[in-house]
Amino acid sequence: MEQRTDLALEVRESFPEDDVELSGVVLSEYRPENTEIRISKVEIKDDRGAKQMGKPKGVYVTVEAKEYLNNSRREEDILVKEIAKQVKELCDNECRGKRILVAGLGNRDVTADSIGPKVIEKLFVTRHLIQELGEDFQKKHRFEMVSAIAPGVMAQTGMESFEILSGIVRETKAELLILIDALAARSTERLNTTIQLTDTGICPGAGIGNHRKALNQETLGVKILSIGVPTVVDAATIVKDTMDAVLSGQGFSEEELKSLHREIREESTKNMFVTPKNIDESIDRMSNILADALNLCFAPGL
Amino acid sequence: MEQRTDLALEVRESFPEDDVELSGVVLSEYRPENTEIRISKVEIKDDRGAKQMGKPKGVYVTVEAKEYLNNSRREEDILVKEIAKQVKELCDNECRGKRILVAGLGNRDVTADSIGPKVIEKLFVTRHLIQELGEDFQKKHRFEMVSAIAPGVMAQTGMESFEILSGIVRETKAELLILIDALAARSTERLNTTIQLTDTGICPGAGIGNHRKALNQETLGVKILSIGVPTVVDAATIVKDTMDAVLSGQGFSEEELKSLHREIREESTKNMFVTPKNIDESIDRMSNILADALNLCFAPGL
Amino acid sequence: MEQRTDLALEVRESFPEDDVELSGVVLSEYRPENTEIRISKVEIKDDRGAKQMGKPKGVYVTVEAKEYLNNSRREEDILVKEIAKQVKELCDNECRGKRILVAGLGNRDVTADSIGPKVIEKLFVTRHLIQELGEDFQKKHRFEMVSAIAPGVMAQTGMESFEILSGIVRETKAELLILIDALAARSTERLNTTIQLTDTGICPGAGIGNHRKALNQETLGVKILSIGVPTVVDAATIVKDTMDAVLSGQGFSEEELKSLHREIREESTKNMFVTPKNIDESIDRMSNILADALNLCFAPGL
Amino acid sequence: MEQRTDLALEVRESFPEDDVELSGVVLSEYRPENTEIRISKVEIKDDRGAKQMGKPKGVYVTVEAKEYLNNSRREEDILVKEIAKQVKELCDNECRGKRILVAGLGNRDVTADSIGPKVIEKLFVTRHLIQELGEDFQKKHRFEMVSAIAPGVMAQTGMESFEILSGIVRETKAELLILIDALAARSTERLNTTIQLTDTGICPGAGIGNHRKALNQETLGVKILSIGVPTVVDAATIVKDTMDAVLSGQGFSEEELKSLHREIREESTKNMFVTPKNIDESIDRMSNILADALNLCFAPGL
Repeated sequence: MEQRTDLALEVRESFPEDDVELSGVVLSEYRPENTEIRISKVEIKDDRGAKQMGKPKGVYVTVEAKEYLNNSRREEDILVKEIAKQVKELCDNECRGKRILVAGLGNRDVTADSIGPKVIEKLFVTRHLIQELGEDFQKKHRFEMVSAIAPGVMAQTGMESFEILSGIVRETKAELLILIDALAARSTERLNTTIQLTDTGICPGAGIGNHRKALNQETLGVKILSIGVPTVVDAATIVKDTMDAVLSGQGFSEEELKSLHREIREESTKNMFVTPKNIDESIDRMSNILADALNLCFAPGL
Repeated sequence: MEQRTDLALEVRESFPEDDVELSGVVLSEYRPENTEIRISKVEIKDDRGAKQMGKPKGVYVTVEAKEYLNNSRREEDILVKEIAKQVKELCDNECRGKRILVAGLGNRDVTADSIGPKVIEKLFVTRHLIQELGEDFQKKHRFEMVSAIAPGVMAQTGMESFEILSGIVRETKAELLILIDALAARSTERLNTTIQLTDTGICPGAGIGNHRKALNQETLGVKILSIGVPTVVDAATIVKDTMDAVLSGQGFSEEELKSLHREIREESTKNMFVTPKNIDESIDRMSNILADALNLCFAPGL
Repeated sequence: MEQRTDLALEVRESFPEDDVELSGVVLSEYRPENTEIRISKVEIKDDRGAKQMGKPKGVYVTVEAKEYLNNSRREEDILVKEIAKQVKELCDNECRGKRILVAGLGNRDVTADSIGPKVIEKLFVTRHLIQELGEDFQKKHRFEMVSAIAPGVMAQTGMESFEILSGIVRETKAELLILIDALAARSTERLNTTIQLTDTGICPGAGIGNHRKALNQETLGVKILSIGVPTVVDAATIVKDTMDAVLSGQGFSEEELKSLHREIREESTKNMFVTPKNIDESIDRMSNILADALNLCFAPGL
Repeated sequence: MEQRTDLALEVRESFPEDDVELSGVVLSEYRPENTEIRISKVEIKDDRGAKQMGKPKGVYVTVEAKEYLNNSRREEDILVKEIAKQVKELCDNECRGKRILVAGLGNRDVTADSIGPKVIEKLFVTRHLIQELGEDFQKKHRFEMVSAIAPGVMAQTGMESFEILSGIVRETKAELLILIDALAARSTERLNTTIQLTDTGICPGAGIGNHRKALNQETLGVKILSIGVPTVVDAATIVKDTMDAVLSGQGFSEEELKSLHREIREESTKNMFVTPKNIDESIDRMSNILADALNLCFAPGL
């Protein structure tokens, strides 16, 4: 199966809803009362589910907030609280009293790839304050111990994100690593309005076409929480998906559709991404929301 | 005819090559020796040609430099010189010894729309120096009298670019107005590698979906030179064009293709644009090239 | 008298408090209850006062908020409201139902000079909305008609701010022009914590050493409100003021101090400015506060 | 002795020229032919010299280029070559064929502190290319193996630069660490025109008032080359130095001058720095020069 999205939810949606084959994958969802927010959870429970989904075993929470993000400050507050709640559920036992390192992956100079570094800019870090002012200060303010880094991308550093983070995790004895990254989605409607949280790791740059050494608990030896926001759709994906939707309505079979895909002249979509015109603005807003959610989790007394 | 591109060259290409209907439109091209640069000229000579092309009468020069832009400084120099030469040919009689105002249209905070303001940043302006130091200074350095403005877009200013430029043109008695703007193209291969120069005006924001009052000699009362760089392809365009190319190979008629267009679910492509991943970097480079070309024209002794 | 500050309040402070000579200059002040904000009003009532103060006749309101700016969101809200109130008092009769143009003077690429352009970025402009949606829309939302421009500085545009604004004021028939600019102060403690509002005009760039054609009601033919924030102290000023303070404590006479000023080697302070380390951050904050205050004035229903 | 500068050259200048006490400190200088560049070398040879200078033993090379930086591209090229030559002399034996890590210290969001991160942005990194394409590729292009990081400052990361770099040095087995940082000077004429290169380490943030754990061969276990550019003068320094210069001309003794220093009201200069108005621009230029020099050293075939 061709993987065109980083969202486990979209992979799940590409299967028929009652697919008995997908027995190791459990989907549930709920909507916070009086909101337009939808929170879906995809649990990949066994190796068979993992293989079929093309994703590692683990929990994938998707927060969708289409209606909200164009709206008022009040509604953004609800979204921030829901994300904070999901962060806690995914790592609460692990984060209380632990040393947390937040890493904003991606290239700050490429708008669609900049959400990680932008979250780091707005994050409230406490590690140096706690080391200087002590545990009483930490308890009084109910701060978790948070440090942060935006390691940059390989073309800027010559190093894998893995190498940089591995060195820092070991040096600072971090116990929980939170990764923030830009993802690729399949649906343009999800761009900059959806957040995926998962207890599995990340392949940095996967969202925009650069596969690197995986960042996960096995490779880094530390508990991981990954938070991703889809910021681009691959141009080839939107072309194929639209063509498929139109032609399957005309009675084309799945096999015929696949054969047509091969007819597509690759140059027109290669290395091209679909983004909304206002991506600069919506990345700013989404990075504020994520930073606020993390600050609410780890420095609630702020 | 549905207009999906701002490039006159792409409109011309959408007609059969020997179309007798297009009698009022003349196409010529040449390649500077030992380069990969292609320079095409579309002349729309009469009203009938204008109507068929969906563009005002005038000369449209397109400089294509795919190979060059990924390459060496030496090759960029050749491109700069070719553009400078085209600028001179399109306005030489009008620019010698005249008061020139260069306007960088677009929104500096939206990457795909920022090329105009970025050219202005790098432009060498001389008007204030000449006013202070006199004509001898001007002659000695062979400076034309250049002023510049980045008027912003309506969502930032509450004013039409037309209003701002009209006021400044009148106040400073400008005699030649050069407009720099981002355009929409039909082919992704032309993004950030192609420059269109024309002696007609511009509809600001047309490239990314906002139609405003036209900027041209009739509305502003001043000779115009417009320079545009395609920075986005509309997502609907790439979907339709790719589908058409694949299906016409399968024997679908033009009529059938049009009927399929109507089946495309609009939400997936509405307000979406296709850009290369490295758009931030390529807009920087292209704005340098344009500013260098204008500086070479108007301040050759620099 | 050597002018080392753009703040009328600081000029007034340089005279003895009960100076009978300064008969045409009235100073009053008040503190909003339960705040550390101090609001001072210097009124220059006649030509003699104007000459002694080295400033045109008019009202100069200074809002000082040292304590506040390092503090909570709640306290910033009070400051925003106080500034909005002062704006209204200075131009209320003129702004109700009038066409307002806000101009952010200065160079966005020079941190200490960027406050004007940064306020414009965050301003809510309404003119285009009202023109499109009509008076009912305007009344329903209680919007004044606001447009905005950041004209840039002469080194960027080749034009005086005066020329650009004059053209736009005439073209758009603006009735009130609000100028935002960076100022020079004498006291470092006032940097980025103080706002001066006045119904007189501005000499653009005066704060950082570039005198240009004045922007005022006489030259532009439109009612003016100027809002300035001191962002730099001239290095020569801080050196002289500190030396004077120390040496007058040692019994040096005013004449002796002046003669010592002449001994100062000029190169060490020429074109040098004193700023706090965190100027980038404090300019961001102050531009938010000013934009919020203007938005509160002109779009209270937002 | 009160330390008001990071430049060893300025410390040396504060002693009488023929000071016999400074026997462990050797000063030499030369000027490249037909240039205005001055290159001075201060060698601190023993512990006594180190104590008197208030700096660790080592070689401190200062490149001064006042005249050059306002001038032509040709002159910048000479400067780039001189810096590259000094880099080679200070670490040639150590850098040939070794793994080099360049760290750009400082806060990219504070102009005066951003030179380190800005050099990193423009550096040509090769480590990932060499790892992918092999030794033949490296030899063919005469590339040294270079990686780079901008670790940020403690207020952004919660971690000491020491911790981040220590982790990365160990993980990537770097053999030479080049540190780039902003410094404080005593003379405004040296701001953004002077480069200090030394084989000793750096105290990050020392230039602008934040003392952190030292970065040097002892703490990091790797050969160090530090490159610094003075971007600020402490406001207190300029006030005291100017006062001293004026008053010593009036016959005041050194003791009297020191006693007057104590009279200076601290608030007016606390946390204040003197910078030129055009600091944003001159930091851009200086970071280009440093990046070009390092690229010339480590990727001469580029």
